[in-house]
Amino acid sequence: MESKAPKITDVARLAGVSTATVSRALSKPETVAESTRNTVLAAAEKTGYRVNLSARNLRRQRTGAIVVLVPNIGNPFFSEILAGIETALSEADINMLVVDTRQAHMKPQLVLEYLHATRADGIIALDGSLPDAILSVASSGSGAPPIIFACEWTPKGEFSSVRANNTRGGALAISHLAGLGHRTIGMITGPDDNVLTHDRSRGALKALAAESLVFNPLHRFSGDFSLDAGARAAQAWLQLDQRPSAVFCQSDQMAFGFISELALNDVSVPDDVSVVGFDDIAIAKRFIPALTTLRQPRKKIGMSAARMLINHIQTNTSPAVETTILEVELIVRGSTKAFAG
Amino acid sequence: MESKAPKITDVARLAGVSTATVSRALSKPETVAESTRNTVLAAAEKTGYRVNLSARNLRRQRTGAIVVLVPNIGNPFFSEILAGIETALSEADINMLVVDTRQAHMKPQLVLEYLHATRADGIIALDGSLPDAILSVASSGSGAPPIIFACEWTPKGEFSSVRANNTRGGALAISHLAGLGHRTIGMITGPDDNVLTHDRSRGALKALAAESLVFNPLHRFSGDFSLDAGARAAQAWLQLDQRPSAVFCQSDQMAFGFISELALNDVSVPDDVSVVGFDDIAIAKRFIPALTTLRQPRKKIGMSAARMLINHIQTNTSPAVETTILEVELIVRGSTKAFAG
Repeated sequence: MESKAPKITDVARLAGVSTATVSRALSKPETVAESTRNTVLAAAEKTGYRVNLSARNLRRQRTGAIVVLVPNIGNPFFSEILAGIETALSEADINMLVVDTRQAHMKPQLVLEYLHATRADGIIALDGSLPDAILSVASSGSGAPPIIFACEWTPKGEFSSVRANNTRGGALAISHLAGLGHRTIGMITGPDDNVLTHDRSRGALKALAAESLVFNPLHRFSGDFSLDAGARAAQAWLQLDQRPSAVFCQSDQMAFGFISELALNDVSVPDDVSVVGFDDIAIAKRFIPALTTLRQPRKKIGMSAARMLINHIQTNTSPAVETTILEVELIVRGSTKAFAG
Repeated sequence: MESKAPKITDVARLAGVSTATVSRALSKPETVAESTRNTVLAAAEKTGYRVNLSARNLRRQRTGAIVVLVPNIGNPFFSEILAGIETALSEADINMLVVDTRQAHMKPQLVLEYLHATRADGIIALDGSLPDAILSVASSGSGAPPIIFACEWTPKGEFSSVRANNTRGGALAISHLAGLGHRTIGMITGPDDNVLTHDRSRGALKALAAESLVFNPLHRFSGDFSLDAGARAAQAWLQLDQRPSAVFCQSDQMAFGFISELALNDVSVPDDVSVVGFDDIAIAKRFIPALTTLRQPRKKIGMSAARMLINHIQTNTSPAVETTILEVELIVRGSTKAFAG
């Protein structure tokens, strides 16, 4: 029955405007031009669209805000995703409140209080390890605020998510180095229990196999994505009898630490060893040498998650679980060159 | 009259505990050890301290949260300050909600709604250009949530603030270069209307005068703190007939852009020109060469602001306006060396 009732999308199509405009024309008529308002009202009448009054009233009590849950607000990793969310929300006239969930891990009740207090229309989680108490609110069916995960750790269950294709990123790094003639390729990984480490390593190992290259376990340096981990890997690399001629670093930070520590030991990148990073943070193009790396679509991840959430809010249905996987891009710069033999 | 009434600080002193503990012992007795509770209660009785019941009731309705207003959450500049705030708040069992005020500039009403909805105990503003509507709430006297500014742009009026000593930072940069024998020193500044630009330039010019050095206006490159601005300044530097032998960049990002663009043009830092940055962001110690710079106490700024706010909340009085100025520190690394003549 519900599926046959005219939807806001039908009104938008007939009126030739966005669903956001329909929503505004009906809920805050003073914010749209009179001609638009009239077109929308005519279309609503023609389609037989009825604003769900109880939902509308509920919505009217809300603040037009969504809550973003971030695992660690001190980590600049999340800044660009937040900027993307903010950009997309601004377009739809929705605002955001950001909550650091490090504290919330201890007190899920608190996050629930915030959701309640701010009458949030929805949630975007950059933190895949949310406590069940929060997840159960978000999945409690009609009336519950929709939740979108913009991270790799989407918890088991029926949640929509947006993430980057890390597996493919790992494969692209290796194919690039193999294409340059490198036959022994090392790898600096993230923490062992990290899903990013897992996906990037899986893609890399698959690509190595496809190139018929053997991966020497001595050429795997375990890190934690930090500058210091890269520097430690450089020390380990320096002590090897047989050094790989290229190294895939699973983060730009580790690549910088690696290159910098090698430079202090008079080993030059890319002349002595080629290096690929992962992330393409801003400084990558200005490092010396400029870093070949995989560009993560962070801002796009934020924007996609926000648009998915807006769609869930505006259609006001319980939509099917959606998963958007965004591609990473190989950016070739000065830190890699052809194997010299 | 109010000033003669015993205060929470009197109870804390007598009980030999912090005001935070007194506050907890009285408002959430279950969260402190029984012996502490008894000591505090005895001290409260002895001093004649009375919990202001109406204030206490008001407090009890609050969520134990503060709101942090950030001008642009997509800018990693603020991440470390937020991390500092978070650290200090955690210690006091207070939580934070972060609001991006870019949107709020258009709608101060929204920020007020958040403050109301979350029943915030106080505000930390990293944004000095808050609209009057918000400032007037914060300065509306007793019962108003206290506000602390953790930024350089504290608005006129009676507001407490925490900031870094940018003027002294500018002076330290110049003294360091002059001490290395450099006589012609250039400068890449931030935007002209920016208070950081103003303070850092003022300190630099004062130090130049103290060293009896003349500043050539052709050696001033106008930037905006970004990587690209540094690269543009490098192009301008390359076109000078008489090049300064040292350049003070008013941000690390501009220093990286400057050094990187020079490297692309076969000009070496520090052999051909010495460079000082400002900020000491994480990558500075791993740049090639490692960057001599002024370390900003960002995390400390956040922690100080949070502690100041906690104190204002817990003493529950209208405290005097406080200003804390934190020192910056010169970190000497590889990007500067003695003038070779």
